[in-house]
Amino acid sequence: MRVSELVQRSGASLATIKYYLREGLLMPGEATSATQASYGEEHLRRLALIRALTDVVGLSVQKAAEVIQLIEGPGDDLFLTLGAAIGALPPYVESSNEQAQDYPLARTALERLGQVYDPDYPAVGQLDRALTAASAAGFPVDDDRLELYGAHVRAIAEYDIDHVPEGPAQGAIEYAVLGTALYEPVIAALRRLSHQDLAMRRFVPDSATDPAGS
Amino acid sequence: MRVSELVQRSGASLATIKYYLREGLLMPGEATSATQASYGEEHLRRLALIRALTDVVGLSVQKAAEVIQLIEGPGDDLFLTLGAAIGALPPYVESSNEQAQDYPLARTALERLGQVYDPDYPAVGQLDRALTAASAAGFPVDDDRLELYGAHVRAIAEYDIDHVPEGPAQGAIEYAVLGTALYEPVIAALRRLSHQDLAMRRFVPDSATDPAGS
Repeated sequence: MRVSELVQRSGASLATIKYYLREGLLMPGEATSATQASYGEEHLRRLALIRALTDVVGLSVQKAAEVIQLIEGPGDDLFLTLGAAIGALPPYVESSNEQAQDYPLARTALERLGQVYDPDYPAVGQLDRALTAASAAGFPVDDDRLELYGAHVRAIAEYDIDHVPEGPAQGAIEYAVLGTALYEPVIAALRRLSHQDLAMRRFVPDSATDPAGS
Repeated sequence: MRVSELVQRSGASLATIKYYLREGLLMPGEATSATQASYGEEHLRRLALIRALTDVVGLSVQKAAEVIQLIEGPGDDLFLTLGAAIGALPPYVESSNEQAQDYPLARTALERLGQVYDPDYPAVGQLDRALTAASAAGFPVDDDRLELYGAHVRAIAEYDIDHVPEGPAQGAIEYAVLGTALYEPVIAALRRLSHQDLAMRRFVPDSATDPAGS
């Protein structure tokens, strides 16, 4: 398709598409003349991915570019690639502060959960950051909550790992990186909606027999 | 304490504190003279909350102000207050597009999960947005995944609802709003770390007997 059709079908503006091409987020089309190029379904899918990473996951264009670069040229080591991709997801942890590198809240939590972890994995700092913030704001995660959350999150993660696609490593890495990023907003929204469902059933008993939206 | 001590203990700069006071995010101190005020622990906790909402949850200062305003003057209706607060959390759904208001993916998902919901609750649009983005990027949430995620997220939400603090409604609203926002990054980080734990145990078997960090 020509770029005008790509604009129309993707919903992205021409200026945005040119910007993504220039920054390397979008792969070039196939040149059909000196000034024209032809685009395909992979361009549409890539534009949808950039939009998902920026608008829904909340990444800056720069961070989205980092994630896409890792998917395109993942290297040989799944753990290193995945670690680098996780580091591009929020919350961002400054690596300059030596004190913070110890991550005491995350270490204690992971030991209580009996989980194996690489202390340099960015998610360790992210967990520590999240636990510290909740605690400072007056809502510490106590052991009881940690264990309950940990068990159910682990069951979700098991499902994720059980469904890593077979075949070339490229597919597994894409699934690992994008499944981490794209399903987090789904999980967050489901929790918000479960709160509403449970609260309505408990505090507005009639609502359960007359579900809204039916 | 004087403002200089508040700067030192909170880690926020004087300019930032003055900005938050001006914008109403931080409550005024007790005036001790025409030009000085005294601050207490509630100011420290509020600064920690603003930091958590902006740096860890990822809200703009404006969105953080909306959340704090709802906690301060929640009104009588828990559902309305909570709905407004959820609307201040990402992902942001444009309410101008009539087509999008139907939220077909979210409705189908919630019906499959048998959940009661208010179609105007912001999380319905957020779920739809997240499901649409995942699907457009090539990682649709199929029924099997939805049901597994839904069941475990529901168990987490049940724990949350079981632990709503007793006493004045103000406390329940603060817990509902901040527990939603502050624990989401904890859940996301735990999932990222469970992936690592599971992957290491499966693909690097010796790692389980020699946990990193111990």
